[in-house]
Amino acid sequence: MAPGGFAAQDIFSQVPISVLTDSYKASHFLSYPEAQKMVAYGEFRSGYSKDTADTRLICYGIRYLLENFITRQWTLLDIERADSFYRTHLAPAQSLFPYPKELFLKFVKENNGYFPVRIEALPEGSCIHPHVPVYQITSENEYAPLCTWLETLLTMMWYPTTVATLSRRAKDVLEAGFEQSVDGGRHSPLLGSRLHDFGFRGCTTVEQSVIGGVAHLLNFNGSDTMSAAYYAQFVLNNGRPVGSSIPATEHSVMTSWPSEKEAIENMIIHFGTGLFACVMDSYDYAEALAEVVPAIAQKKIEAGGFMVLRPDSGDPVETILMALDAAEKVFGCDVNSKGYKVPRGCGVIQGDGIDIQILSRILDAVIAKGFSAQAVAFGMGGGLLQKVNRDTLSFATKLSHIVYADGSHVDIMKSPKSDTGKLSLPGVMAVKRVNGVPTAFPAEGGYVSPEENMLRVVYDKGPVKVDWEDFDALRKRVDTEWHALPKTASVISPPLQQKMKDVLARRTAEHPHV
Amino acid sequence: MAPGGFAAQDIFSQVPISVLTDSYKASHFLSYPEAQKMVAYGEFRSGYSKDTADTRLICYGIRYLLENFITRQWTLLDIERADSFYRTHLAPAQSLFPYPKELFLKFVKENNGYFPVRIEALPEGSCIHPHVPVYQITSENEYAPLCTWLETLLTMMWYPTTVATLSRRAKDVLEAGFEQSVDGGRHSPLLGSRLHDFGFRGCTTVEQSVIGGVAHLLNFNGSDTMSAAYYAQFVLNNGRPVGSSIPATEHSVMTSWPSEKEAIENMIIHFGTGLFACVMDSYDYAEALAEVVPAIAQKKIEAGGFMVLRPDSGDPVETILMALDAAEKVFGCDVNSKGYKVPRGCGVIQGDGIDIQILSRILDAVIAKGFSAQAVAFGMGGGLLQKVNRDTLSFATKLSHIVYADGSHVDIMKSPKSDTGKLSLPGVMAVKRVNGVPTAFPAEGGYVSPEENMLRVVYDKGPVKVDWEDFDALRKRVDTEWHALPKTASVISPPLQQKMKDVLARRTAEHPHV
Repeated sequence: MAPGGFAAQDIFSQVPISVLTDSYKASHFLSYPEAQKMVAYGEFRSGYSKDTADTRLICYGIRYLLENFITRQWTLLDIERADSFYRTHLAPAQSLFPYPKELFLKFVKENNGYFPVRIEALPEGSCIHPHVPVYQITSENEYAPLCTWLETLLTMMWYPTTVATLSRRAKDVLEAGFEQSVDGGRHSPLLGSRLHDFGFRGCTTVEQSVIGGVAHLLNFNGSDTMSAAYYAQFVLNNGRPVGSSIPATEHSVMTSWPSEKEAIENMIIHFGTGLFACVMDSYDYAEALAEVVPAIAQKKIEAGGFMVLRPDSGDPVETILMALDAAEKVFGCDVNSKGYKVPRGCGVIQGDGIDIQILSRILDAVIAKGFSAQAVAFGMGGGLLQKVNRDTLSFATKLSHIVYADGSHVDIMKSPKSDTGKLSLPGVMAVKRVNGVPTAFPAEGGYVSPEENMLRVVYDKGPVKVDWEDFDALRKRVDTEWHALPKTASVISPPLQQKMKDVLARRTAEHPHV
Repeated sequence: MAPGGFAAQDIFSQVPISVLTDSYKASHFLSYPEAQKMVAYGEFRSGYSKDTADTRLICYGIRYLLENFITRQWTLLDIERADSFYRTHLAPAQSLFPYPKELFLKFVKENNGYFPVRIEALPEGSCIHPHVPVYQITSENEYAPLCTWLETLLTMMWYPTTVATLSRRAKDVLEAGFEQSVDGGRHSPLLGSRLHDFGFRGCTTVEQSVIGGVAHLLNFNGSDTMSAAYYAQFVLNNGRPVGSSIPATEHSVMTSWPSEKEAIENMIIHFGTGLFACVMDSYDYAEALAEVVPAIAQKKIEAGGFMVLRPDSGDPVETILMALDAAEKVFGCDVNSKGYKVPRGCGVIQGDGIDIQILSRILDAVIAKGFSAQAVAFGMGGGLLQKVNRDTLSFATKLSHIVYADGSHVDIMKSPKSDTGKLSLPGVMAVKRVNGVPTAFPAEGGYVSPEENMLRVVYDKGPVKVDWEDFDALRKRVDTEWHALPKTASVISPPLQQKMKDVLARRTAEHPHV
């Protein structure tokens, strides 16, 4: 057992690296034509939830996949375990499923067990538009047929990228509210705590809570997902704090006391000099605001801290306005430099049923009632970490280039007539900024110099040294790039567009069916 | 490094067990009243996607959480690491977040590092209705305030339970189609391969692919998620095979050849004596059916195996019927004992955009056109493993009972006026079958004998011996219980209903706000 770590029987030791792909990929070494070289790449194919007005996205997450899976050395034991599995995996006879055993043995013996492909990737946190290649995989010589073996793992980049993008889009909404109604506007230090991660328990697994929670922390510092806050701080940021939270009640706390008043008075005793939150709907939210808040007001004011009221059911716009009215009535309001009311030592957090649309509706209603956006914070749980999927930004990996055994080569495009959204890009590619916008180019032809190419080698038949930025630097990069990137842009360069036309023309001429 | 396992820096060794909960839970040891004992329980609060006509669900997944997280021994290092984290986790000053350090030290020293609560749970694979407690947590004496610490982890049971239930509901639809149009009806051996797991890459993480993929395998044996098929076979089934698949092309395979015809001919060379699948929409699906299928027919027939045609874009009902028509035209059909057409040596699999509704629509259309349901299989990716969330079956953990320091005790119910769906059950509970239906009772009062109680102790301030069934046995249990359980049932026993009334009456009398 690793010190302070999990027992050796944890899932990553129980499942060998040699089966971490889709079954059909194990058969592909026989399905491809003989080749000297193959190239595939990954791209997001749409804006968030098909948004065409703002297609920005935050490309994030390849470091984790590289460090934890891709750079792992395969051993003979991995192959033995694979063998015992593939031996009975074929339907319907539970017989030997075809898999590239000889290639596995070869790279275990001749390449130190490292998976024999090269991977280039965009820098972590790059803000881009759909269709920009985020990674490119190259396989050569005897290992050419392994080009897409890692697709299944690498595709999982969709998840942290999607959460980071969702969280950032929510921040855009909050920033607008802050610009209108908060002193300091979007530069207010309060902004970073306005969207709080409530999503740990709504995740499917602990690993997800880390990956998704960290992606949110690229944009905000508010998080109750401690697995992620810990990981971001100690693994990704040299120990410097990344996420923070406050003491808060849940229903079990409120209902464990004879009355809600006693529950809150106890919170004031322990946490009353700082920030603390109380959920208010265990029995009757309106009564709790009308009776309990006034009843604890004196003690709360004497303690001097900041109390956050939390509705947790009912219509969120209505329940938030009710809480703000109660706060104003009991604690009073100040009016800030922009003319908006700020309840004294009291705020509201809504954590039930939040998505970006509802968040936006709530902020509008709060501001329309004359309150500052700073009076309200939001918690997002499943909405932040789980209610997304690979289609949210339409991620896919596609083959783009092949050099056949005879040395002839061809640029490849998938282009299904039945769904033009599933068109892929042809050839070996590079990515260069054009007027600041990451743009896809053919790698050859002199369009992109090696220094300009944003696709950097992060793995080359084994680990390579990558200067991963720490988390503080990543946050700055994201913030800067997100604001600098136009909301939409044309990202396929003219020479790549020309190549696409050429490939389509060639295909029409050659008739690739038969 | 564990043999064949991952490097020591994997995520489960990098994040200590002491932070695997929500931040606010770290503050709860100070937020609860002093108590001798606390009891909480977990329940699903609704049928699948709010279905009220069939509220059955398959309770699954606690074994994994127990074996991998709950039964882990905490060490002093875990507490040191927690300390270094909590020290800067409090907002806004990045100062010490309150957490139960003394209690941690105490159970590390006095309880061998085992988390000091008792957990009872339903047997894995139990088929139940919402509101039946699936686990119950008891904490006592000095450890009473740790009662809900594990809620965050235990709540993750929502995920495998939801996937298992979704997959089973899909099987119900398939069973109906089989009963109508397939020889042998729902007992046909083909049924188990009709819903194939395509979801690995659409998962957020590898851990999720295992947990979700295994949940699907409770109902079906078709899976390309090898991480799960491996885990189910070697960790949960003593090495006996659980999941199977067939060689198949992806777009990269079809487009890597000069023509689709050559790609398929190569498949026939390597896999043509068995089952194999080819994706058909890389360029023009209709043309591929019209030109390529006839062109490879002779070789395919000579090889003698079974070819599966896969559309992957366009309207799924239409594209499937097109494939069946093409198969009939090229290979001919037999008519089975129920009068439905079965294409000879050829079938179709639809893996794009499948959910239960679409699956049902497709089957209806296929059968209406005179084809047997066995001619079509389905692949489900994100729809199976990712497009679910904690709200799909509305899972929650709630406090239900407390014994205060003075020995007085009270049964607790959350019952928010603003959402009666969030009502919880009061008191310590037991679960007993009534006419076969798992039903919730008060634990005391003689309603349920220890032998009858389906809530079994699975952890008692440390690991206890649990006779986990192997995966084959679990599958049988699920199949039997699912068919035996009525689609809806009243699961709150009369004495528990009476207790709920009593608690509500007491509360009205006592006015719990102030």
